[in-house]
Amino acid sequence: MSLLQKIQHQRHDFTHRAFDRHIRLGVTGLSGSGKTAFITSLVYQLTQGDHPANLPFFDVVREQRYLGGKLSAQLPDMPRFPLEQNLQYLLQASPQWPPSTVGSSRLGLQLRYKATTGLRARLQSHSELSLDIIDYPGEWLLDLPLMEMSYQQWCEFSWQLFNREHRAALAQPFLQQLQDADLANDGELYVQQLTDSYKQLLQQYHDLPGAYLNQPGRLLVPGPLAGAPMLQLFPLLPQQAAQNTALVAKLTQHYDSYCKHVIKPFYRRYFAALDRQVILVDCLSALNAGYAATQELRQALRLILQSFNYGPSSLLSRLFKPQISKVLFAATKADHTTPEQHKALTLLLQQLLQQPLKHSQYQAATTEAMAIAAIRSSNSGFVQLDGLAQPCISGSTLQHEAVTYFPGDVPTNLPTPALFAQHQFAFIPLAPLPWQEPEPLPHVRMDHVLQFILGDKLR
Amino acid sequence: MSLLQKIQHQRHDFTHRAFDRHIRLGVTGLSGSGKTAFITSLVYQLTQGDHPANLPFFDVVREQRYLGGKLSAQLPDMPRFPLEQNLQYLLQASPQWPPSTVGSSRLGLQLRYKATTGLRARLQSHSELSLDIIDYPGEWLLDLPLMEMSYQQWCEFSWQLFNREHRAALAQPFLQQLQDADLANDGELYVQQLTDSYKQLLQQYHDLPGAYLNQPGRLLVPGPLAGAPMLQLFPLLPQQAAQNTALVAKLTQHYDSYCKHVIKPFYRRYFAALDRQVILVDCLSALNAGYAATQELRQALRLILQSFNYGPSSLLSRLFKPQISKVLFAATKADHTTPEQHKALTLLLQQLLQQPLKHSQYQAATTEAMAIAAIRSSNSGFVQLDGLAQPCISGSTLQHEAVTYFPGDVPTNLPTPALFAQHQFAFIPLAPLPWQEPEPLPHVRMDHVLQFILGDKLR
Repeated sequence: MSLLQKIQHQRHDFTHRAFDRHIRLGVTGLSGSGKTAFITSLVYQLTQGDHPANLPFFDVVREQRYLGGKLSAQLPDMPRFPLEQNLQYLLQASPQWPPSTVGSSRLGLQLRYKATTGLRARLQSHSELSLDIIDYPGEWLLDLPLMEMSYQQWCEFSWQLFNREHRAALAQPFLQQLQDADLANDGELYVQQLTDSYKQLLQQYHDLPGAYLNQPGRLLVPGPLAGAPMLQLFPLLPQQAAQNTALVAKLTQHYDSYCKHVIKPFYRRYFAALDRQVILVDCLSALNAGYAATQELRQALRLILQSFNYGPSSLLSRLFKPQISKVLFAATKADHTTPEQHKALTLLLQQLLQQPLKHSQYQAATTEAMAIAAIRSSNSGFVQLDGLAQPCISGSTLQHEAVTYFPGDVPTNLPTPALFAQHQFAFIPLAPLPWQEPEPLPHVRMDHVLQFILGDKLR
Repeated sequence: MSLLQKIQHQRHDFTHRAFDRHIRLGVTGLSGSGKTAFITSLVYQLTQGDHPANLPFFDVVREQRYLGGKLSAQLPDMPRFPLEQNLQYLLQASPQWPPSTVGSSRLGLQLRYKATTGLRARLQSHSELSLDIIDYPGEWLLDLPLMEMSYQQWCEFSWQLFNREHRAALAQPFLQQLQDADLANDGELYVQQLTDSYKQLLQQYHDLPGAYLNQPGRLLVPGPLAGAPMLQLFPLLPQQAAQNTALVAKLTQHYDSYCKHVIKPFYRRYFAALDRQVILVDCLSALNAGYAATQELRQALRLILQSFNYGPSSLLSRLFKPQISKVLFAATKADHTTPEQHKALTLLLQQLLQQPLKHSQYQAATTEAMAIAAIRSSNSGFVQLDGLAQPCISGSTLQHEAVTYFPGDVPTNLPTPALFAQHQFAFIPLAPLPWQEPEPLPHVRMDHVLQFILGDKLR
């Protein structure tokens, strides 16, 4: 092989490898946190919204090196994120939020750009990066702690939770039913009947603002597991779970199967393949729901962070070698407050994460917290009040009534019970702003999001 | 090792192997053919109904060698057949048919019996056989022929079907939509919109008595495949499918993916593991629905039989080595006719199968056809009519009105269009007979079914 051939061969090789550059981005968040809006916006910004004026803090766009993004061929047998359908909801005369997805979906993008320096810039006219966006319910991450608990410990954990102020009333009927339970009875019908009662309770909690910790994560949306014995699962009262009875034995067996056949495979096959992760958090709804809700959100985030703690003694590093290198925590719906409150919202999110972050001392991933709105639902401005300019936002309620108002201050610290007793937070849900193509899809800080997630890979 | 030890060792080994004896029984049938009632009865007969008076033609029971059956531990992560729930429907004061299952489920049994002769009889006090019952929709078998067709051929096949007498009217709106279709448009929204229209048509066909051939089988019940691109699939008009356009290319790609990611894996992973198969056929409903329905049922059975044709040139033998050795075709709901008509019902089923059976000359499996009722819904007797004893049945309609009547003759040959023009078959659906445990669950010929499926393995 001549030197020229060798160089050409290497060059070909390099091009090929360059073409293979690939990022798998996980997007998650608890139910209602805004996953659908986030992914819809992210993809739209990367494919249609790549103007410096729209994404000023996304380096590759600002430097005019971004050549464009397009949807790539989808895996034929994986649920696909319904991007086009979602955009239709936003393009209506009275725009609506697209419906939330159930379970997991995927969307692939091919991004093309000019590299700045290095071999790539010299050898190629353009570089490519393929981006896989994988969306899954945050509730799946809340299952991880089950693997470190026994069935009995889970019962204790669950009933401590159900006894809290905002949850206790709903739990009464199920509590009553368990108190009268026949622990010697492990018959199919009986176990299913108690499971159905627990499912009903979980559904009520799911619909209750501020109840985040609903386990096991697959009981409400079983998908292909519907009817599998291990989904006959509910927490007995702790004093019951300590007894050696037929019912306890059966539930323990189902609990162990759930860990083995649901939780482990999710982390091994799914989570292990992710390179970067976005976690969406709706702090404002927690404030609306009161003190107990903010405490439970903090606890849920602490449990979720365990999935990003790869220290030598962590549960995950015993399961597989994780490779997530960047985690973004985003406080969504920032546009439901006035712009000068965004800083406070970011600080509040950081405070929610602070204690957990301190605990995960071996954490290998870079984390960042920011306040965003993936798709804007308000414009901000000022009204004159007693001669003073008072900040305000204007938009439409979900019932399409126009409103202009000051939604109130966002606390920079988790408020105390005393403050909640005096003050009711009320961040009203708003509909998306009217929007027509080819205008850019209005957002708050999606350019910062893109820079954090992709900036280093698009140099 | 002493001789004694050696013998004991061998004996232990043999016992172990004997214990491992295993039969995987597939149970299928087109929607509405009675799968749920069949499995419920089969399991009940094997676990609670093992008296010679109840199962006179099941050798192992008649010879009093059957020691009993019990449910075995279930796979924790596979949907379980809801036996106990189904029995509850039958035990009500006004019994109802249990709801039909969606997708596939499994139930395992451990059967214990005394062997008659041979090594097993001498070495063991009892023998065991484990039976796995795997239930899946017959519609999945109707997908097999897709693998031998191109997308274009499937379009031709589908529109020939949709143009038939009993189907043409319903297809009109979709036909119209396709005639106006933009073949250059392969946009996500457009393809989804046409798929939604086709799904609507398939749903209407599914609810239409006598429309059996609804492809692809997973479009109406996608399960975990919901949202996967390959399920954007519908048959264009044949003259459209012959053109080289973007829409044709996309649909062809989805069609090929469906064959690769749905049909092949079902046969390889699922069907390949079955040892015996029961196929339930509701001939009476086809007669009620008229000539076109009986013709379509015959065609559907011919396609289903392809899955049991293992000849050297068959499609299946190129995919894997099938091992199904016995196939039972059962005409269900025999108790909706008077007993002297059961012979005719069996002959009718044989006639429906005759042509296909002739074609599958390399068929390795033993097949049998019989008329059965898994769970009885009528008692039979006689009424005096003009001094003559006229056979009749008595039961309750699905609205729980008591009825006693002669449902009419079952033809022994497929009736001609002329006969259908003069005569309306009307086999009325009946509710299950009232039943209380521990009475045996009343049936027609479930002992023959058990003898054919299991008799040789319980010698």
